[in-house]
Amino acid sequence: MDLQGLKLAVVGATGAVGQETLRLIEDRYPQHTNLKLLASKRSAGRKINVNGATFTVSEATEDSFDDVDIAFISVSTEASLHFGPIAAAAGAMVIDDSSAFRMDPKVPLVVPEVNGDDLAWHDGIVSIPNCSTTPLVMVAHPLRQASPIRRILADTYQSVSGAGGAAMNELRDQTRTVMHGGPAEPQAQPQAIAFNVFPHIDGFTATGYTREEEKMINESRKILHEPEMAVSATCVRVPVFVSHCVAAHLEFDQPVSPGEARELLNGMPGVTVQDDPAQGVYPTPVEAAGRDDVFVGRIRQDASHPNGLAMWVVTDNLVKGAALNALQIAEHAVERGEVHGLR
Amino acid sequence: MDLQGLKLAVVGATGAVGQETLRLIEDRYPQHTNLKLLASKRSAGRKINVNGATFTVSEATEDSFDDVDIAFISVSTEASLHFGPIAAAAGAMVIDDSSAFRMDPKVPLVVPEVNGDDLAWHDGIVSIPNCSTTPLVMVAHPLRQASPIRRILADTYQSVSGAGGAAMNELRDQTRTVMHGGPAEPQAQPQAIAFNVFPHIDGFTATGYTREEEKMINESRKILHEPEMAVSATCVRVPVFVSHCVAAHLEFDQPVSPGEARELLNGMPGVTVQDDPAQGVYPTPVEAAGRDDVFVGRIRQDASHPNGLAMWVVTDNLVKGAALNALQIAEHAVERGEVHGLR
Repeated sequence: MDLQGLKLAVVGATGAVGQETLRLIEDRYPQHTNLKLLASKRSAGRKINVNGATFTVSEATEDSFDDVDIAFISVSTEASLHFGPIAAAAGAMVIDDSSAFRMDPKVPLVVPEVNGDDLAWHDGIVSIPNCSTTPLVMVAHPLRQASPIRRILADTYQSVSGAGGAAMNELRDQTRTVMHGGPAEPQAQPQAIAFNVFPHIDGFTATGYTREEEKMINESRKILHEPEMAVSATCVRVPVFVSHCVAAHLEFDQPVSPGEARELLNGMPGVTVQDDPAQGVYPTPVEAAGRDDVFVGRIRQDASHPNGLAMWVVTDNLVKGAALNALQIAEHAVERGEVHGLR
Repeated sequence: MDLQGLKLAVVGATGAVGQETLRLIEDRYPQHTNLKLLASKRSAGRKINVNGATFTVSEATEDSFDDVDIAFISVSTEASLHFGPIAAAAGAMVIDDSSAFRMDPKVPLVVPEVNGDDLAWHDGIVSIPNCSTTPLVMVAHPLRQASPIRRILADTYQSVSGAGGAAMNELRDQTRTVMHGGPAEPQAQPQAIAFNVFPHIDGFTATGYTREEEKMINESRKILHEPEMAVSATCVRVPVFVSHCVAAHLEFDQPVSPGEARELLNGMPGVTVQDDPAQGVYPTPVEAAGRDDVFVGRIRQDASHPNGLAMWVVTDNLVKGAALNALQIAEHAVERGEVHGLR
């Protein structure tokens, strides 16, 4: 069972995640042309080729969704808040990539390999997690078979594509400027990014955490069905184009050996263990870019806790961190018969 | 009391840290020309201006240290192992920047603001810590006044200058190549560094940790006189030229509030608190580069532990992380009368 024959709308089709969604549709459904490409007024009129057919991007409006089976929305939180309910009311299943609905108790927040069963209670809208949450829960979930998780500490190394196409252009242009001796003048991001890092992704809250960090904390708890689980994170932007990395420290109820962890992670669909450091084998963002899986390496007994494991997790934030996870949710929902009102 | 009038040798004078040492001597002792610049045979003969005088770099040999009061050694561990004992036997006080002697129980490992008293028992050689250890203990030490530290988790974002001048050149050249569409071909480092990060600094040990990570663990314990303290680290190279960052999570015996932590850190010589995230105030490597202090921000109650604090620490790894710490050790030792056999 797959998405063949369904009318798919891609909202934000000209954005970094939208483009990745179209690339994945070509990969997985090379015949599929039953598509509607939507975007803001600014991008309307652009032509995009998908599977040999040329589509004109339309402006998303209240009337855009009447003939749509599944709408993949990857735009701003504000636009999601507007179009999500409209598309759902028009009968489309909405799979939304923003933070608009993620913590809404009526909206499942889904990584299919982890909590695909939560699709059972969707009411038209399903959210996908933030791009640094997904890899974390993909490795945490299988390890729970060994022992319950008591605590997760996650410090991230996040690429600029997580901030969108403008931030990617800024990294490229600013790097060129700085290499020619010019000044770094941040516009798309809060600080200079060329040859720099900064712990500032999304805004700050009263707790001193950023909203990005609170997403990792709250979304992990929701996906893993562990509302009280202790989680902390520092989210850091690094001058990398694509893929997010996480230095993760997990504490379990009982000791879990690195060997047992590798075995459980090897058995997890969508996870690839790359862990032979003596041979230089561990994941890096450049090598993970464009690939489907969550890559994990540097798995070791955490020296600071008898029941702890430390590891290094890398994922293409546009693929499994966003577009692929959304497509997999759609496929899973179709398979389960959870796409309501299929035409 | 200062270093004026003493014969100072800089071993590794043409390297990244050696150059920083000379710059700091010019800053702090603008009249001082009682210097001897030493390096490997390869660099011998190079001319370097310091305080208006021109020095010719000599090859370091067994006879180089007979007239030297203090020798700052910043070369390879192998060269330190060779020249450290020779210089000490010749009567010089050796301040060594390598890992050669750091864990030697007869060698103090010193950050003057933290454990300057350990200079009392030196026997000719004093080690300075690894450049990611120093900032960590500079923030951990004052916080112990509030409550004993039970555990430290530290994930790092380390610049290429920590790997020396060749790695800095590689970042520049490889970035240019990649921006022109060429391949990244790592030579000075184990992986591509242009627009990439990798958790591989120094070699791997049987525990799955790198030696760099084990340095942070073992050196922190030695400097803080806490041989059993629980410490873990993931050390990651990032495409930044200068300054190392640490995302640190500290657990205390009792709760410590962010306000109390800021007050204690404000009172610590050599530490500057930059912590007003709502106004975009937190340290970054680009802004810390070339400055003396350890900068700390993002200080917050750790959401995952009732007695925990999370924070973000940034330091110029060549300055307080290396050359400045060495000079401060020398100044402190002179002040205490711990430079033996002064001529």
